[in-house]
Amino acid sequence: MEMLIRRGFLWQSFEIYGGIAGFIDYGPLGNGLRRNLENLWRDFFVINERCVEIDSPTVGIEEVFIASGHVEGFSDIAIECKECKKVFRADHYIKEKLGIDVDPSIGIVEEVIEEFNLRCECEGEFDKPFHFNLMFETKIGPGKGKNGYLRPETAQGIFISFKRLSNYFRDKLPFGVAQIGRAYRNEISPRQGVIRLREFNQAELEYFVHPKDKTHPEFERYADEKVKLVDKFDREYLITLREAVNRGIIAHELLAYFIGKTRDFLIKAGIKDEKLRFRQHKDDERAHYAVDCWDAETLTSFGWIEIVGIADRGDYDLSRHIQYSGEDLTVFIPYKEPVKVRRKRIFPNISKIGPVFREKAKMIVEKLSKLENVDDIIVDENGKNKIEIEVDGEKIVIDSEFYEIKEVEEEIHGERVIPHVVEPSFGLDRITYTILEHAFDRDVVDGEERRVLRLKRWIAPVKVAVLPLLSKDEFERKALEVVRILKESGIFTEYDNTGSIGRRYRRYDEIGTPFCITIDHQTLEDDTVTIRDRDTTKQIRVKISELVDVLKKLLSTEESIEKFGILYS
Amino acid sequence: MEMLIRRGFLWQSFEIYGGIAGFIDYGPLGNGLRRNLENLWRDFFVINERCVEIDSPTVGIEEVFIASGHVEGFSDIAIECKECKKVFRADHYIKEKLGIDVDPSIGIVEEVIEEFNLRCECEGEFDKPFHFNLMFETKIGPGKGKNGYLRPETAQGIFISFKRLSNYFRDKLPFGVAQIGRAYRNEISPRQGVIRLREFNQAELEYFVHPKDKTHPEFERYADEKVKLVDKFDREYLITLREAVNRGIIAHELLAYFIGKTRDFLIKAGIKDEKLRFRQHKDDERAHYAVDCWDAETLTSFGWIEIVGIADRGDYDLSRHIQYSGEDLTVFIPYKEPVKVRRKRIFPNISKIGPVFREKAKMIVEKLSKLENVDDIIVDENGKNKIEIEVDGEKIVIDSEFYEIKEVEEEIHGERVIPHVVEPSFGLDRITYTILEHAFDRDVVDGEERRVLRLKRWIAPVKVAVLPLLSKDEFERKALEVVRILKESGIFTEYDNTGSIGRRYRRYDEIGTPFCITIDHQTLEDDTVTIRDRDTTKQIRVKISELVDVLKKLLSTEESIEKFGILYS
Repeated sequence: MEMLIRRGFLWQSFEIYGGIAGFIDYGPLGNGLRRNLENLWRDFFVINERCVEIDSPTVGIEEVFIASGHVEGFSDIAIECKECKKVFRADHYIKEKLGIDVDPSIGIVEEVIEEFNLRCECEGEFDKPFHFNLMFETKIGPGKGKNGYLRPETAQGIFISFKRLSNYFRDKLPFGVAQIGRAYRNEISPRQGVIRLREFNQAELEYFVHPKDKTHPEFERYADEKVKLVDKFDREYLITLREAVNRGIIAHELLAYFIGKTRDFLIKAGIKDEKLRFRQHKDDERAHYAVDCWDAETLTSFGWIEIVGIADRGDYDLSRHIQYSGEDLTVFIPYKEPVKVRRKRIFPNISKIGPVFREKAKMIVEKLSKLENVDDIIVDENGKNKIEIEVDGEKIVIDSEFYEIKEVEEEIHGERVIPHVVEPSFGLDRITYTILEHAFDRDVVDGEERRVLRLKRWIAPVKVAVLPLLSKDEFERKALEVVRILKESGIFTEYDNTGSIGRRYRRYDEIGTPFCITIDHQTLEDDTVTIRDRDTTKQIRVKISELVDVLKKLLSTEESIEKFGILYS
Repeated sequence: MEMLIRRGFLWQSFEIYGGIAGFIDYGPLGNGLRRNLENLWRDFFVINERCVEIDSPTVGIEEVFIASGHVEGFSDIAIECKECKKVFRADHYIKEKLGIDVDPSIGIVEEVIEEFNLRCECEGEFDKPFHFNLMFETKIGPGKGKNGYLRPETAQGIFISFKRLSNYFRDKLPFGVAQIGRAYRNEISPRQGVIRLREFNQAELEYFVHPKDKTHPEFERYADEKVKLVDKFDREYLITLREAVNRGIIAHELLAYFIGKTRDFLIKAGIKDEKLRFRQHKDDERAHYAVDCWDAETLTSFGWIEIVGIADRGDYDLSRHIQYSGEDLTVFIPYKEPVKVRRKRIFPNISKIGPVFREKAKMIVEKLSKLENVDDIIVDENGKNKIEIEVDGEKIVIDSEFYEIKEVEEEIHGERVIPHVVEPSFGLDRITYTILEHAFDRDVVDGEERRVLRLKRWIAPVKVAVLPLLSKDEFERKALEVVRILKESGIFTEYDNTGSIGRRYRRYDEIGTPFCITIDHQTLEDDTVTIRDRDTTKQIRVKISELVDVLKKLLSTEESIEKFGILYS
């Protein structure tokens, strides 16, 4: 952490005003790393799927979060000290002080406090525990305003625009909609630095499918990968995804596909496979609507932490928004061939209705024709059929002599369904932090210990450092020329002319810069420069005119620099 | 706008719950366009400057915005109807109903309402006008919580981390720090759709310089560009930036540099030069701390709208944060050569202090040695010199017999300065909207009117559409193969097999897709495809194996497709 702060990866926000827990700033290097991570994610989960990305507001109106269930259910139990007025999150405080895992309910927390006579750190007594909603509240507009909340997840912005998004895909399932952006959680008393933030960055994909088809056309890509799984009974497996589906450990192929793809992505981003596992939610930890849910967990100095959640949310979200908004969020699925069905229908007897009902006859005929279902027929106490309809607010009973029931054959062209959604949801801050921890390494170079950040080349924030060997005018001028060529080609490049060359190499090793370009005496003679590889410290010599091409190739692969030039001592 | 909504560029947020003014969703195409715009901005203003990018929270603690002046000064005047309780922004309402521009002060608004007997649209009377702060408020943490606000600009997150950022650049001016992200403005009653948002996207650069050096090493790049200027006296010029600086129209070279660079960027993004001008803030419209300020304005169906502000903010922000936080946010500027100065210094007389002050002597000597300034000497009513110091909380008066004053020569190595900042601040939503408006075009193709979005290739959200000529299996299979190759190379590609080929071309012309790839009969024979250019509708034929290379070149330039293959009718 000290290195991360000192070198400009990240630091606590608002430091000069004393700071506040749960907020961090991404400095130049941390921001670069996270942006690269986002682009890699976009490549995996948007460009290379039948998916699009949208961007909806971080402030939402109350209606959305009433429907989503967050107004009612998105809360933790808090306890406040009667003396010092400090507030703690009850389950965390009990775990910390007593080592007990408690089910976070008001009753249980109350019991534990009483039984163990649990007190505040200041020795004060706790008041009654209470529910604290974790959404940040605000008001939109002046006066009383309209209630608003900062979104607790990006997903709801996708669900409420489902109709427009489905249109974009011409109502053809499956399709996915992604969103990368801020989400908020007004934590009661966050203590774990980067791990528990009040404002954080999510990348979420909502993948909408036919409820009866939870497959993926590219499942074969990952089917034979062996993955470390921990199921809901805490049983551990090292098993192929195909076998996990066949044995019913993972609920279906689509979840398994996203587990495989998530693992591929995380490893490509620099998370170590041996410190990665997928853990199934236990029955009591899973949201009530979720069919099955798996977390990607990674081992860090904070222990195993959750970095991705992959859940089958069923039709819960769309159903709730249908219910609360009254809008139709279904998709019409045409059958390949229209299906013929025989069914009973009601046919009004017009010639009999006319004389009896007169001016109302026309409307009665219309109403009867529209009745789709023979279930509307009721049987009275005398065993006679009749139908009750409403015309102009008046209830009219139609006896069976006024209609006939016939069986007819009809063509049905398809059905309306509420799609199910499978959601891989990524915590970008925790992934960023894990990448840094897993990349941190020490080795020995020239007899001295060296600190090196072994970031993947495509993730490293500073791609190239250009270093004049000596701080003389002709070296520096040439170096700045090279800097300009690299920057104009879009490569994130730094220039550094201070300190010995060895010290400068160490500086860039420490922040994970994959390549250092050195301008030396030979450069002035023949317009070549050396490229030094961070991991091996080996160097090759390359013409300046070929530098951009060579670097672009090197930065997009993990190939050794020896492929691009002769090793130079 | 109808096309933008229908085709998925953007739409009003929360539609299914009735919507609320001031919030929009970027759909798949709008999001793609804005992300491309951000990357272009990053390339201009971060990678190709001595600049870095950071990312700080959107929620800020109250202290920050007290210091910045937003808590006190970031407000509009509102008027509320006594009858219907509707609230309006006073200056906008008066302008709309009476056509008068008013200086937004409570007194003037009150006068105008009285004089013109201005009433609400419902005929109700207005209550007294009041200040409404435009920051969204929230509470951080449970209980009473801590007051927080959603940031009204990204800039403050940069100023408060100035020390760490300056360290990153080893305290060497000039350097710039950028931020791209959300900002918020709780507008009273926004009415102009995309143009006046409550939640919007900014890209800001804070470029820190020595107060006495407002030049830029690359000014020559833009010095001879002719730019349309409107100065604070409403005088119009078409003039080179060099001349504008020389004649004192633009305050200094650095502002002129950023005007030139902003213009270059906007044109590259697709804004039309003939609909672009730079307008200087008038003396009464400029923030009191700003030395000079220029807005880039563009002509749209809403009239001339501001899309970029370029301001010299002086040392206002850093000075305020120094004052409110007590932290040192200065930069030490070493002189090229140390400067020798003669000054008076205080030397304690140790042999006299010892016997008199005993156990306190040591501390007194230390304190006296540290006094830098002879101003600490006070003269009492008898004309005798003395010094008052504090030792262990006790005030002690030291008579002049215990010290001497001598003139010495000292070397000064530099000075501490509060840097000035020049800020180009970009409204990304308005720029996105303008690009779309300026790109919209109609022409005639094959005797039919065609709607086409002439987006720059690097800005277009969908780069390539792959279209099987016929909806037969062998065409579709080949097309999906090509889609896969393009997607894996990171090109944003869509596949479309519905409708006639002509209709599909029109569909992609309408959303600005630069190239359509068609899989036709010849493809099945010789593995070539046609590339169709959106603007000319001309086509060339290219081998599938060369497709990625050709497209990548085409997408990064404005070269004609004829350079890459023989025209194919």
